[in-house]
Amino acid sequence: MTPDTDMAVPAETISVVTSMIDAQDAVGLAAFIDLLEPADATLVVSRLEPTKRAELLSLLDAKRGAQLAAVLPESQAVEALSAIPPQVAAPLLRALPSDTRADLLGSLDHESAIAVLDALTTDEAEAVRTLTEYEHDCAGGLMVIEYLSYHAALTVQDVVDDLEKNADRYARFDVQYMYVVDRAGVLRGVLRIRDLLLTDHSRSLRTVMLTPPLSVRVTAKLPELVAFFEKRSFVGVPVVDEKGRLVGVVKRSAIQAARAQDNEKMYRLAQGIIGGEELRTMPLRVRSRRRLSWLSINVVLNLIAASVIAAHQETLEAAIALAVFLPIISDMSGASGAQAVAVSTRELLLGVTRPTEVWRAVWGEAWLGIVNGAALGVIIGGVATLWQGSLWLGVVVGTALGLNTLLSVCIGAATPLLLKRVEIDPALASGPILTTITDVCGFFIVLSLASLAIERITG
Amino acid sequence: MTPDTDMAVPAETISVVTSMIDAQDAVGLAAFIDLLEPADATLVVSRLEPTKRAELLSLLDAKRGAQLAAVLPESQAVEALSAIPPQVAAPLLRALPSDTRADLLGSLDHESAIAVLDALTTDEAEAVRTLTEYEHDCAGGLMVIEYLSYHAALTVQDVVDDLEKNADRYARFDVQYMYVVDRAGVLRGVLRIRDLLLTDHSRSLRTVMLTPPLSVRVTAKLPELVAFFEKRSFVGVPVVDEKGRLVGVVKRSAIQAARAQDNEKMYRLAQGIIGGEELRTMPLRVRSRRRLSWLSINVVLNLIAASVIAAHQETLEAAIALAVFLPIISDMSGASGAQAVAVSTRELLLGVTRPTEVWRAVWGEAWLGIVNGAALGVIIGGVATLWQGSLWLGVVVGTALGLNTLLSVCIGAATPLLLKRVEIDPALASGPILTTITDVCGFFIVLSLASLAIERITG
Repeated sequence: MTPDTDMAVPAETISVVTSMIDAQDAVGLAAFIDLLEPADATLVVSRLEPTKRAELLSLLDAKRGAQLAAVLPESQAVEALSAIPPQVAAPLLRALPSDTRADLLGSLDHESAIAVLDALTTDEAEAVRTLTEYEHDCAGGLMVIEYLSYHAALTVQDVVDDLEKNADRYARFDVQYMYVVDRAGVLRGVLRIRDLLLTDHSRSLRTVMLTPPLSVRVTAKLPELVAFFEKRSFVGVPVVDEKGRLVGVVKRSAIQAARAQDNEKMYRLAQGIIGGEELRTMPLRVRSRRRLSWLSINVVLNLIAASVIAAHQETLEAAIALAVFLPIISDMSGASGAQAVAVSTRELLLGVTRPTEVWRAVWGEAWLGIVNGAALGVIIGGVATLWQGSLWLGVVVGTALGLNTLLSVCIGAATPLLLKRVEIDPALASGPILTTITDVCGFFIVLSLASLAIERITG
Repeated sequence: MTPDTDMAVPAETISVVTSMIDAQDAVGLAAFIDLLEPADATLVVSRLEPTKRAELLSLLDAKRGAQLAAVLPESQAVEALSAIPPQVAAPLLRALPSDTRADLLGSLDHESAIAVLDALTTDEAEAVRTLTEYEHDCAGGLMVIEYLSYHAALTVQDVVDDLEKNADRYARFDVQYMYVVDRAGVLRGVLRIRDLLLTDHSRSLRTVMLTPPLSVRVTAKLPELVAFFEKRSFVGVPVVDEKGRLVGVVKRSAIQAARAQDNEKMYRLAQGIIGGEELRTMPLRVRSRRRLSWLSINVVLNLIAASVIAAHQETLEAAIALAVFLPIISDMSGASGAQAVAVSTRELLLGVTRPTEVWRAVWGEAWLGIVNGAALGVIIGGVATLWQGSLWLGVVVGTALGLNTLLSVCIGAATPLLLKRVEIDPALASGPILTTITDVCGFFIVLSLASLAIERITG
């Protein structure tokens, strides 16, 4: 690899690729794709017209097509796979690891998925169906089915012979570990390939394997798997069904990739990008519709908050200086609440807080809310007093911000845990819902206090 | 593993562990830790008093201590390591993979780190120093130095003998691949252990190894490494220095873990948690200070935005209904801007946008800003007209929101790219800076328009 080769003219590269696609120059394209750095391939192919991208995938051989599909954003890969004939898509998918294959097939629309499954062999289709049946964030959804398993009665020599005979087919397999099963397919032990190397070839696997084998259940959830791999230095762990039968292998890298996805989703949701990853190459109407669906919830909730202000319009009219501080109270409380949401969301993901511990989270946050609320209240109260020349205005604004900070951090701490318990993504908590609650409370507190002290403020 | 075992009484478990620590019951603690599920170990140990946690680590043997350190949040692991004697910390660190070891040592304060380095052997200390020299997000910072390399002139039998002799020491190594080097240490080829299994033991490595070996430079950055592994199904890739000498191995799982960390940091920064991960077990003064340092920037910026309102106080007084809509304009523009920030930040991370392509990002966002701005402007304008019974108020508020939405998405799209170019984390863009700019613009637009049309609004 030659590092640091920022392409000078991506636009030119894109037009070269496009004209090769138009000329159906399969050989040229294959050579060109091999030449590109993976990072440049991502950039160039992601910028092609969707139809060109699909044509490119169908012009390349299955292996290169699979490589390309793997470096594209998932939405683009899925779009291209739906657009190419199932007989072309099937071998491409076959060249991908089984977990990626199941992910992509699971994201295709029903009709395209069926067409591709029909083009796969019965065994392959069956395997994909099995994998897509599981939740994407449990061992079943994260495992691959490319593993080697042998019956316990076989000898080391039998394994060596099998490896030799099927060397090509196993080329894509991780064969650092092999698994030993009994007649019923129940996992009985683990073989390390390096141990085979050092062992008399006539011994039976039963006498060589490591027992008891560690394994995870097919239903094991992501946090359990993360903890499993953090405690142990294994590259992979066998997955068994409820009867102890070996059904797949979860690799360490799959767990890390799933964590990366979880964190990515957390960020995306917190920023109001709903309905999946957005790329600027997507059609404007899709992007606009998705964003608006989120913003329009925001509009409604904002109007609820604004109605609190409208209800106190008389107070505002009497002390117009309050209008200057309303957006500050809204924004500052929102920022404090977002911090509390982030800490709760992260603690859930790290496994140091359980969703049931709502009171613990609120308690841990309340003290901080008192300290930070007092600090911010004094600052803003002081500024208000000096700026508008009214001590009472300062007292009202400062007290309101202090109280609302306390409220915001408590609500912000609790919401992700409560959402988690009803299986809604905790990261959504920092969105409009929290903002609205803190706005309503903030506006209500400041305007109620002001109406109580209105004569002193205006006096 | 037995799944779904939520501990019924963590408080009791914690007090059991605490009393075992107080009784210095090393044997009992070791047995207890072995019994706990990793997820429960994380929960229980993360809840101990910091001093108890450090005592626990020093009571356990190095292997169990290392396992525990690996499942704890990094901040707690670092805190505990600083608190225990270097002679205890050193073997514990030795039992960790070299990359984790370097990360933890790199996070210790200077004095503790030196003390631990002194307690390691010269070779080990040297290796750690080398690893900590690299940026954490390049191949040098992500690699491990536990790999097997052999001289090209050796035979397969020599390797098998070495594996047999050092089986214990290599137990922690991933030995799916071994590397073949020349006298100068330059990487010449790769050996797959499964190929050794199938090969005549008298052959020299030179004739068995795969060439040319793929490798990455020690300076290769994370996006390059991500793309490398996405294109290929390798478990690891050898890392070479500028002279082609083998210096380490980057594993696929390390790349995925680094991505997860990047995404996590992105979320944390966007939510205003600055200065590293926050846990509710940290001292209140640390948590409060860190959050306030961020919020106080927010205060200053909010005051700037508020001063725009203050400057238009007369207009507001004449049309108090405007005060109801100011927080809506602030919040809605902020939400639209945050969406644009998220798309730019993600596109940078995915490698489908380069930091230099600011105009492309703004252009892609401007059209969406026009569509969404028009839609939101019509909605809010309509609501304002009906609610307050003034068409002109509706026109002013709607126009202002529409224009400010367009502005916000353009600024939101550009800021992460500009920050990336000056090597500031792009995720920071969604914080107070963007909010302030959009607030200032929004308040200015709506109040200026209102002062132009003040007679029609109030008439």
